[in-house]
Amino acid sequence: MKTLIDKIKSEGQVYPGNILKVDSFLNHQIDVELLKAIGEAFFQRFKHTPIDKILTIEASGIAIAVIAAQYFKVPVVFAKKGEVKHHLVYSTLIHSYTKNKTSIVQVNKNFLKENERILIIDDFLAKGEAVYGLIDLVNQAKAQVVGIGIVIEKGFQEGGARLRSQGYHLESLAIIDSMDQKGVQFRE
Amino acid sequence: MKTLIDKIKSEGQVYPGNILKVDSFLNHQIDVELLKAIGEAFFQRFKHTPIDKILTIEASGIAIAVIAAQYFKVPVVFAKKGEVKHHLVYSTLIHSYTKNKTSIVQVNKNFLKENERILIIDDFLAKGEAVYGLIDLVNQAKAQVVGIGIVIEKGFQEGGARLRSQGYHLESLAIIDSMDQKGVQFRE
Repeated sequence: MKTLIDKIKSEGQVYPGNILKVDSFLNHQIDVELLKAIGEAFFQRFKHTPIDKILTIEASGIAIAVIAAQYFKVPVVFAKKGEVKHHLVYSTLIHSYTKNKTSIVQVNKNFLKENERILIIDDFLAKGEAVYGLIDLVNQAKAQVVGIGIVIEKGFQEGGARLRSQGYHLESLAIIDSMDQKGVQFRE
Repeated sequence: MKTLIDKIKSEGQVYPGNILKVDSFLNHQIDVELLKAIGEAFFQRFKHTPIDKILTIEASGIAIAVIAAQYFKVPVVFAKKGEVKHHLVYSTLIHSYTKNKTSIVQVNKNFLKENERILIIDDFLAKGEAVYGLIDLVNQAKAQVVGIGIVIEKGFQEGGARLRSQGYHLESLAIIDSMDQKGVQFRE
């Protein structure tokens, strides 16, 4: 997706540890025009897949998921981080390498139902920790992951290849082949 | 806003301690059609006010703010919770009575600039803790709060009256006069 790649090239900041900061337009400040183009791009890639619900994770997935959901005309559910207080939730553990932190993540059982067709949406894919956590929640509910939409995939880490080899329909709007202080190289 | 009030009447759940759960359409699962109507309602109420940016707070404010921002055609900034790691942020403390927890909340200094006209948007207003925290961040940046848009105001708590008496242009789409296990009464 060219507008996204151009934006990453001009405003993304690379830090040691394979960290790409996109705080100025995606993760802290949000460029809503770009976000609409992202939502539309996901719709173009998944419009032939019947979808009942979009699942994402707080906080940075929420903006992307709700804008995309307008095109699909389906509800969004966002998994919440934090202590589980009762048994009326599905829960899993997700480790963030960027934040070096493991979080309990949960969804109320009322909001993921058996046989629902779920599109997972998130901002980043690297090793796949967050996506596999969300897949785990969907599986616990006996719902079905029919697609995974990612804004920025770090193609040099294993998450994307692993998900594709397992047969998931994964669509990433920008795939990074390598990055360092000098810049970011994208897959054609 | 009638569709919102009807939704609260049919799906909102009242718990002891003046807690109103709207998890099924606003705070965990999100009814995106309703959210679009909410965004448009904010636009109708603030369309004559010049606005540069919408400010909200993670996590539940994000969905509302980005949908509203589409109508205003401005960027969103969401204040983040968690430890301050460097001095390049404005920070403040916000206490949640619902969660009985005080959080450090911060915005990168690059994303709130002097003289910017800021519309604050959030899901709930009760005692006003979150809104006053966001106002504090705007003031630290020498920006200007030109409006406050709230989805659900607990009119029986003091936040709304206090903000209005201080001259803020506060618009709440649903104002609750009282609530208990039997139901929710709204202000006309």
